[in-house]
Amino acid sequence: MSTQPIDEQTGRAVQVAAEAREFYEGLVAHGLIVPTEVPGGFARGPGFERVLCAFDALVQRETARDGAESLVFPPVIDRRILERVDYLDSFPDLCGVLYSFEGDDRQARELSGRIHRGEPWADRLAMTEVALNPAACYPLYPTMRGTLPPGGRLVTMFNWVFRHEPSPRATRMQAFRVREFVRAGQVDEVLAWRDEWVQRGQALLESLELPAQREVAADPFFGRAGRMLASNQKELKLKYELLLPADSALEPTAVCSFNFHQQHFGSTYGIRTSEGASASSACLGFGLERVTMALFRAHGFDSERWPRPVRHRLWP
Amino acid sequence: MSTQPIDEQTGRAVQVAAEAREFYEGLVAHGLIVPTEVPGGFARGPGFERVLCAFDALVQRETARDGAESLVFPPVIDRRILERVDYLDSFPDLCGVLYSFEGDDRQARELSGRIHRGEPWADRLAMTEVALNPAACYPLYPTMRGTLPPGGRLVTMFNWVFRHEPSPRATRMQAFRVREFVRAGQVDEVLAWRDEWVQRGQALLESLELPAQREVAADPFFGRAGRMLASNQKELKLKYELLLPADSALEPTAVCSFNFHQQHFGSTYGIRTSEGASASSACLGFGLERVTMALFRAHGFDSERWPRPVRHRLWP
Repeated sequence: MSTQPIDEQTGRAVQVAAEAREFYEGLVAHGLIVPTEVPGGFARGPGFERVLCAFDALVQRETARDGAESLVFPPVIDRRILERVDYLDSFPDLCGVLYSFEGDDRQARELSGRIHRGEPWADRLAMTEVALNPAACYPLYPTMRGTLPPGGRLVTMFNWVFRHEPSPRATRMQAFRVREFVRAGQVDEVLAWRDEWVQRGQALLESLELPAQREVAADPFFGRAGRMLASNQKELKLKYELLLPADSALEPTAVCSFNFHQQHFGSTYGIRTSEGASASSACLGFGLERVTMALFRAHGFDSERWPRPVRHRLWP
Repeated sequence: MSTQPIDEQTGRAVQVAAEAREFYEGLVAHGLIVPTEVPGGFARGPGFERVLCAFDALVQRETARDGAESLVFPPVIDRRILERVDYLDSFPDLCGVLYSFEGDDRQARELSGRIHRGEPWADRLAMTEVALNPAACYPLYPTMRGTLPPGGRLVTMFNWVFRHEPSPRATRMQAFRVREFVRAGQVDEVLAWRDEWVQRGQALLESLELPAQREVAADPFFGRAGRMLASNQKELKLKYELLLPADSALEPTAVCSFNFHQQHFGSTYGIRTSEGASASSACLGFGLERVTMALFRAHGFDSERWPRPVRHRLWP
């Protein structure tokens, strides 16, 4: 990319933006999403939800024999998790911390006055103990503290995740749902699980006639220091992604990521293997809205007219 | 209540707390919830989700012929909605506004340093354009701007809602799901719909052998001025609630509320009836976690052993 002349890059960006806008408008025209004033904060219509839920159910059917424990965490988590796992070192610009009002009657009147006069009121709220969950698996680790059973643990979750990255693109949402799996245990069993899942995830998407592309990937680390973290992450192959055309064919969208955390969470939260070592962990997550959009991209905006084998997989 | 002697009130509060603790511990012991460090922020286990989803599906089956449009909004909404509907006048203490980091590399290092040294960092984030949704129906109204079709509109939603009220009680969550219905149109049709639903909601809960109690209710308005708002709300019968024993039999829990908004949202957002008047609106919401807890309270922690007619209603 960096070797392309500037005008070629600009031309490409213009094309991607046009493609993305057309796709967004298609989703709206078919009642699949309903725009709000929040970029990346549209409502999902029934046709969209029907596909999203069917894909999630498919993943659950395909993995039923794995015997994962199943949990749903609320969208808000302990703010200290962000502090302890160094989220704010790496992604400060994506975080969402909740502030609320803690004052008395007089201060409440003052707040109200400011708002009604259209004056700034950001300094009238206080930081609370909660933040939005930026990665589906984060709230799980503190609950794993202690010694894992022999063979480790496998947990699946269905959580809303938040990233503060307002964007006009349908695929870049501020809030979205993730079907997540977490494996914790000995390093070799965790790594084997992660690597096997890269294949398995790809096969699962291909069974829906989606041409998933695999890539070694990096997280969008913040700033100059972030570039080094990203290149280190790629070098160690800590992260793989599966990409699909969703709102742009020129610039495919990551719909699933597979992450090896080494002993980051194990050592932070005192999670030990049954042998007494600091536990390793890995996770994988399907971005459910993005998979749904990739299905609409591949097979058309009317799911009633999708290829029969795809429909059969989703609604058996 | 206020006429009871102090020691009787205290005795009652102690009893309620004991009941509530026992219920919470029962949910945990049966794997129905998993505690986190956040009060009112526990994870939901598979047995809990199975009941919650079944109740929501029951409501959808029972209302299928109403022909409601169906939407899912993300947990975050436009912050200006809170400003425009006067939420921060009435419930400033319950709000959750999202703050994020907007600085540069140097400021990011400073933020990181503060966090690692355990110093305060609340003033390092900036208020964003988003807040958590405090009432399932709020994000809908701005999308209704303009003229309603003849007969008005009926919309159902399944949204996560946030209230900043940390509590050790299972029934008082910071984040929870609501199955919501909104009716917008002429005042008489809206009011008739709301009143009919109070009966219908009660019948629906009774069909699950839940002894719902109906009450004229008020919202938890903030401060001294709030007391007047609450008494006005009760006098005009703007809000009804259905209450059920959930974590306490002494102090039943509101599991469903029915609210008539007069023309509050219609005039704020320029929503007009097909006759050109400012639209009236009403909403009702089932607190899905609370209904689920009321079911566990009434029929026991093991849903496999619930009365056959209840099981048949939920899993036909």
